[in-house]
Amino acid sequence: MSGKTLSPKPLTQSAFAPFGHVLETTDKDAALVINEGHTLRFDNLADLDLLNDQGEPCVSIFRSTPLASPLIIRLMECHPLGSQTFYPLSGNPYLVVVAPPGELQPDKIQVFLASPNQGVNYHTGTWHHYSLALDRLSDFLVIDRRGPGNNLQEVTLAEEDQIRIVMD
Amino acid sequence: MSGKTLSPKPLTQSAFAPFGHVLETTDKDAALVINEGHTLRFDNLADLDLLNDQGEPCVSIFRSTPLASPLIIRLMECHPLGSQTFYPLSGNPYLVVVAPPGELQPDKIQVFLASPNQGVNYHTGTWHHYSLALDRLSDFLVIDRRGPGNNLQEVTLAEEDQIRIVMD
Repeated sequence: MSGKTLSPKPLTQSAFAPFGHVLETTDKDAALVINEGHTLRFDNLADLDLLNDQGEPCVSIFRSTPLASPLIIRLMECHPLGSQTFYPLSGNPYLVVVAPPGELQPDKIQVFLASPNQGVNYHTGTWHHYSLALDRLSDFLVIDRRGPGNNLQEVTLAEEDQIRIVMD
Repeated sequence: MSGKTLSPKPLTQSAFAPFGHVLETTDKDAALVINEGHTLRFDNLADLDLLNDQGEPCVSIFRSTPLASPLIIRLMECHPLGSQTFYPLSGNPYLVVVAPPGELQPDKIQVFLASPNQGVNYHTGTWHHYSLALDRLSDFLVIDRRGPGNNLQEVTLAEEDQIRIVMD
């Protein structure tokens, strides 16, 4: 038995601010007009923090299989040396499960529902579940750090801290 | 009158090698299995070169309007201080028009047709046309360099060097 249940909240810039940035094109007034007027540039949408300890930026594609139902959060991870950006490529919504940096506080875990045109950038150290496709196989473009050092911490939640996610 | 006509060639890793990398998920055998078996990571798909002259990585979304028809290449640009990655987000094919680094040689311009699940990374200095959406408004995730210095060179083609693109 998992300890509690949570329903996803909508992913908004303000609600996600303690954990990172939402990559989205909502702020058209701030976009730059370039390329002889043919392109709107929604510029610099996230704080990429990829250069610590001789780190370098890395671009990859993650192909993620949905977890079995019922969806239970048992494991959280964080990257102490760099940020990590996910942008969905398959036109599907997905879940974002996060907790603040520092020692993992299971009661601070939050669950967001991201739309197919929202990416996320986790700040360095933000706890998160690995990519959570919903319903079907989904690809994500990922920007993260590569380089020396251990950039992965994982914590398995005690049974009473596990979270069953209930979709509304 | 433009000087000549070209039809796009299919975008392949080998044909594009002089200009950069194609970001795609064709090589499943090379993908890493991560996240308790739930994710395939197609790792490190392009050589990102973003740190020259105090440069930093930057992530943006470009929203591109197709050029008017007939599609004529009149202008080429390059970024002497860094690579530039485009990944399509709107499920549409698009055109990639490139020429080798160094002084622009208009007779070396090549035209590729990229599929909706192919991104491109232009090596530092590769000449290219700005993003060329086809048919409809298209978004691209872009990874490029921000920082001091002039990172944009543009060349307007002489009339006899202009290229009219003919879709097969």
